Amino acid sequence: MNIPFSVQTQLGHRTIRKFKNQLLSKETINLLLEVANRTATSNGMQNFSIIIIDDQKIKDAISEIANQTHLKEVPFFALFIVDTYRNYHIALQEGVELEAFKDMDRFIQGFTDASLAAQNMVNAAESLGLGVNYFGSILNDPRKLIEVVGLPKLTMPVVGLGLGYPDQEPMLKPRIPLKNKVFYNSYQKCNNYNEAFKEYDQALSEYYDLRDLTKPIGKFSEQIISKHQNINPVRVKYMQVAKEQGYDLKLD
Amino acid sequence: MNIPFSVQTQLGHRTIRKFKNQLLSKETINLLLEVANRTATSNGMQNFSIIIIDDQKIKDAISEIANQTHLKEVPFFALFIVDTYRNYHIALQEGVELEAFKDMDRFIQGFTDASLAAQNMVNAAESLGLGVNYFGSILNDPRKLIEVVGLPKLTMPVVGLGLGYPDQEPMLKPRIPLKNKVFYNSYQKCNNYNEAFKEYDQALSEYYDLRDLTKPIGKFSEQIISKHQNINPVRVKYMQVAKEQGYDLKLD
Repeated sequence: MNIPFSVQTQLGHRTIRKFKNQLLSKETINLLLEVANRTATSNGMQNFSIIIIDDQKIKDAISEIANQTHLKEVPFFALFIVDTYRNYHIALQEGVELEAFKDMDRFIQGFTDASLAAQNMVNAAESLGLGVNYFGSILNDPRKLIEVVGLPKLTMPVVGLGLGYPDQEPMLKPRIPLKNKVFYNSYQKCNNYNEAFKEYDQALSEYYDLRDLTKPIGKFSEQIISKHQNINPVRVKYMQVAKEQGYDLKLD
Repeated sequence: MNIPFSVQTQLGHRTIRKFKNQLLSKETINLLLEVANRTATSNGMQNFSIIIIDDQKIKDAISEIANQTHLKEVPFFALFIVDTYRNYHIALQEGVELEAFKDMDRFIQGFTDASLAAQNMVNAAESLGLGVNYFGSILNDPRKLIEVVGLPKLTMPVVGLGLGYPDQEPMLKPRIPLKNKVFYNSYQKCNNYNEAFKEYDQALSEYYDLRDLTKPIGKFSEQIISKHQNINPVRVKYMQVAKEQGYDLKLD
């Protein structure tokens, strides 16, 4: 099978955390935005927006929220947000108040739209030789982020995306094998993950993260446990903050 | 600027709703799954799974939930789900009960992971000459879908994806111009959307959807209003169903 270059690039995806000191050209940025704008969108409603952060002070503030200092130095940084504010106000200017733009259906559509657009931009970026770094950590403190970026009600942050020309070559990080992630027709529970994950754990025992070259990252079960010992009590409040942003969770 | 072929493909994205009567080869499916599995994932946790539906009876049942008959005939159909069940049970088998896998942080991570993986698969599919059709409509009745696909607690449906070889050539559907969707450093409200959207409305007045060739789809504000007059009372309960699936929304 002849695998197109872009698909080979996809198969070679890894997070880049160190970039060359080189900005993206305006032409490149515009192309990436046009790609993001072309992404499939639920019902054609486009309930998402993109906020590009090129003011260093704001980037620094977001870096602090994310607790990741390398975010400050990312050559291009964009925030993808749920945005039902726009459509709510378009209808309002036509004299119609649509409560729908405050409900969970629109919220979920916007969240999905924003995520799909981000990944679409990632694929274009990697095809252009750029490296990418998702920042889920912007959600460490959604309230603070909303304040820093001036997000009005009926908007909500989803994910941050950093782009630049790579200045490092990380190893390809092993993934859970398809047989434990892809099912047919119905969900398949596994009675012995320890046994099923042997091959994966072996692969992880040979994987070194550039952030710590002294030892491999270790067994998946150990990572799961160590990474969730201390839960961020602010970050788990995501849906509470969505509620504060005007969304009706429609709980019974 | 030399735009790579794959990026040109991205710029030409449109939803395909009619496919040739030709299945995807096993090799193609495997490649697409490997691409999805390579997608960036929050914290390396991979809190998502994919359920391929190749049992016609189940496809029919999902088609009924989605209220879209053409879903029945999609050559390849996959459901992307939040899956924190796996990691919760991996830790449990090690003797550690991690409440984290029931919280909103993990849920949002899984939802994002699932969406990114779907779009990554879409990009690979389109590079291979396939057409794609997202089915957000699978969420019309999440409870019913959960039953049909046998989703255990700590999983939740996100989006459906249909793939096949295109048998139609729809027009490129206009998008909201970048200036109304992309902001710099802080959210920019618009005081007169009617005025700002003139160009976009003009473009929409020249766009015909293959589902109704008798008239163009019309002004964006009119679409917003007409599409949200009758809200699906089951579908807006998404977060209520997430709660029933074992997630703690962590509301104050």
